[in-house]
Amino acid sequence: MIRKLAFFGFLLRRAYATGPGLTLETMNQNMRNMEYAVRGKVVITADSITSSLKSSPTSYPFSKIIYTNIGNPHSVGQKPLTWPRQVLALVDLPDEAGVDNPNVSKLFPSDAVERAKVLKEYMGGCGSGAYSHSQGIRGIREEVAEFIEERDGGIKCNPDDLFLTNGASTGIGHILTACISSPTSGVMIPIPQYPIYSASLALLGGKQVGYYLDEGKEWSASMEELERSLEEAKGRGVDVKAFVLINPGNPTGQVLSKDAIADVVKFCSKHSLILLADEVYQENVYDPKKTFISCKKAASDAGMLGQLELVSFHSTSKGIFGECGRRGGYMELTGFDPDVQAQIYKLASSGLCSGIPGQVMTSLMVKGPSPGSVSYESYEKEKATIFDSLKRRAIMVVEGLNKIEGFSCQPAEGSMYCFPKVEMPKKAIEAARKEGTNVDTLYALSLLEATGICVVPAAGFGQEPGRAGFRTTFLPQEEEMKQAVELFKVHHEQFLEKYK
Amino acid sequence: MIRKLAFFGFLLRRAYATGPGLTLETMNQNMRNMEYAVRGKVVITADSITSSLKSSPTSYPFSKIIYTNIGNPHSVGQKPLTWPRQVLALVDLPDEAGVDNPNVSKLFPSDAVERAKVLKEYMGGCGSGAYSHSQGIRGIREEVAEFIEERDGGIKCNPDDLFLTNGASTGIGHILTACISSPTSGVMIPIPQYPIYSASLALLGGKQVGYYLDEGKEWSASMEELERSLEEAKGRGVDVKAFVLINPGNPTGQVLSKDAIADVVKFCSKHSLILLADEVYQENVYDPKKTFISCKKAASDAGMLGQLELVSFHSTSKGIFGECGRRGGYMELTGFDPDVQAQIYKLASSGLCSGIPGQVMTSLMVKGPSPGSVSYESYEKEKATIFDSLKRRAIMVVEGLNKIEGFSCQPAEGSMYCFPKVEMPKKAIEAARKEGTNVDTLYALSLLEATGICVVPAAGFGQEPGRAGFRTTFLPQEEEMKQAVELFKVHHEQFLEKYK
Repeated sequence: MIRKLAFFGFLLRRAYATGPGLTLETMNQNMRNMEYAVRGKVVITADSITSSLKSSPTSYPFSKIIYTNIGNPHSVGQKPLTWPRQVLALVDLPDEAGVDNPNVSKLFPSDAVERAKVLKEYMGGCGSGAYSHSQGIRGIREEVAEFIEERDGGIKCNPDDLFLTNGASTGIGHILTACISSPTSGVMIPIPQYPIYSASLALLGGKQVGYYLDEGKEWSASMEELERSLEEAKGRGVDVKAFVLINPGNPTGQVLSKDAIADVVKFCSKHSLILLADEVYQENVYDPKKTFISCKKAASDAGMLGQLELVSFHSTSKGIFGECGRRGGYMELTGFDPDVQAQIYKLASSGLCSGIPGQVMTSLMVKGPSPGSVSYESYEKEKATIFDSLKRRAIMVVEGLNKIEGFSCQPAEGSMYCFPKVEMPKKAIEAARKEGTNVDTLYALSLLEATGICVVPAAGFGQEPGRAGFRTTFLPQEEEMKQAVELFKVHHEQFLEKYK
Repeated sequence: MIRKLAFFGFLLRRAYATGPGLTLETMNQNMRNMEYAVRGKVVITADSITSSLKSSPTSYPFSKIIYTNIGNPHSVGQKPLTWPRQVLALVDLPDEAGVDNPNVSKLFPSDAVERAKVLKEYMGGCGSGAYSHSQGIRGIREEVAEFIEERDGGIKCNPDDLFLTNGASTGIGHILTACISSPTSGVMIPIPQYPIYSASLALLGGKQVGYYLDEGKEWSASMEELERSLEEAKGRGVDVKAFVLINPGNPTGQVLSKDAIADVVKFCSKHSLILLADEVYQENVYDPKKTFISCKKAASDAGMLGQLELVSFHSTSKGIFGECGRRGGYMELTGFDPDVQAQIYKLASSGLCSGIPGQVMTSLMVKGPSPGSVSYESYEKEKATIFDSLKRRAIMVVEGLNKIEGFSCQPAEGSMYCFPKVEMPKKAIEAARKEGTNVDTLYALSLLEATGICVVPAAGFGQEPGRAGFRTTFLPQEEEMKQAVELFKVHHEQFLEKYK
């Protein structure tokens, strides 16, 4: 059938007067070169196995795929928080069908109704169906500013410096777009990194300038390594414009100390690099000895605020909310040239505005129900249940992985990921080379076919030459995650046997 | 206060080791050169007047700004349709707080509950908080495919060729990104055009290749003009890759005949140009003698389907829904090289997925309540009320504008806009030149300050040299729109008096 279609497609293409206009050869080559591992080859294979399992449930030694490739909590059993969804529903309902309906209390708690009214007030009577200001609804930006001020111990935040965005991705795209002015423009990114950075840089035609995180030192970066990386880039003619810091780390899970962040701040200020602070996992800190410190706070405490250009990204997709599908988030700009900031505003305007449901969810993330209000306790309880379970899983998975012969995994102090190093048999490395792939991908595909667990090959994030492994979330629910750890072990033994 | 802050900002900037990293001169110059008129200078002035009116309500001869600059129906009084919002609210509510709650019928009609259950089923238990497939939820794409097949009289539509997008803008961005492979890549766009095209091309560093619509012939484009434009572009070394057709027209309001579209289809096929069919106003046809015909239908009836690469854009923001803030929409690809389509999928993946609330609204736009179900009649009545009022306004505004001495406005057969030509006094043209602007902008600012009406200068859309005017929506509610037409007249007389 597929062959027939392909042949028909061939005939159709033959019917063009001069052939199709756009081919792999004539299209944008930057786009062609872009890679995005978290939705790459392994995931596409997993999706096709899911389809096969529907038509033929016994075709694999498992009944379903366990997706641990992406930080998508609700897709693997995490329940949404009730109160924010109630407020969101009321914001979307027309007044007479919602907040002003005489039956509203039959279905909604009073503090959800009150909060929805406040949000509708922010929307000035337009409701959630209108485009907002290109930076987002002013009242919500004021709430975000209060949240940031409280988080950072009172350091001022101006709502005019906040942009509400579709997740963190759009904001990252805007800033990198502003930075990449020529093919020699570069951005320093950690190795390993989250692939939105490498993908965006490839698409924009800029240069990646990798700096290595030291796995032996809990994935920290030394100042020597930062200077080495910058010098090396300058040496090959790269005009380095910006620096990406991911804290808590993705895929690496470390939580940085204030001193470590201050070092980065000084480095960026010294070299006039825009500091992109990817702080989307700020709520996901599990190690009781660690605290999340924002780059803004660290810069301020080091007396450096205003001496560098800093942009911090946050999102409704991670944390305890896990509201990925909502596409909500914000970025805060500090120390930018006002003329450049006006250009970033213009770019945001060209997309009109971020989705209002995402803006509403951002509001609810930074401001929950008031203490003492009817939903307060249940809301806090739901949050604690999710957080405590994530914390247990963070410990359990790392312990489990470290018990596997040949595995070595740093603690997941924060974020949602483990990034184990795996000693690969030489024959597997050779086999991968022969297949024109890397051993990480060979391993991830083998794991997928044997167990149904879908991880991302470590190569998708970058790593030191000779290292191999994968990234897994610990988002599936506890029983399933325990089984997954068992399956990692069983598969690894099979894999060693196959390639011994 | 502002001066103090500016001075403080100056001091802060002085404190950089080597100055800020990013300035107007060092930033991405394509981004700097981009213009986006519908949120440009006139709108920024309008926003600042809105602020002034808050603190000092009598500072202008009007009490509020009438925003006719942007197709944002809910911001100027259009009410959301009740049933789609009820379904959306139920989809977002956790089951026990919504569809499965014993009190659900106290607030929601049964057909909203049923439809929400179907949508939740499509989401496979993940709910609206999870990232979906990068092309959008499969079940919703199947509904969109059915809608397209029915609209086009049975021509097949494959859900695999559909991408659910954040409004139409993201889809347009993806296709143009794929097309622009070098600074000589160009795209044919109508003059006048909607500025997302010129803005995106400027940002991507591609070339605009304008083809003129003939105002004297109801904004149609002749084949001679298309061939002339293409030849002229080739002559200056432009590699033309694609062609934009906006039907119904924005800002021009014309609705094209099947023959006129078939001509464009043949032109694109002959020259191997990707045809970008901006069909977001397909529901907004007011002239009873006209019908919306999709490019796909016209291509199929001309026996050309499969002989060109066609992409059609649609959106929840326009039509009768007007759900701009939801950021929902789709694009359908036809005749693309499968390898190129896979690359477009990859690009969509890098943004993870479009917002789920926008996907849900797209589903509801293409499939309302079933005939006979409890909400069917009220839903159809709400739709008819909005449509009939838009139709009356389309006629009333065009008539009113044409009664003004020196104004000439083509009929608004479709879409949401009037694009009158205005004869400008010579002294105004000179005054604009002296101020370093164009007379359209001078006129729009004068109109704004005198009446509070915020229009977009025609120059923002492009027009023949020597022409001048503006674009106005007819979205404000009927009484307000009648007043606006009066105010256009009063202001024009004042303007002529000032510059006589």
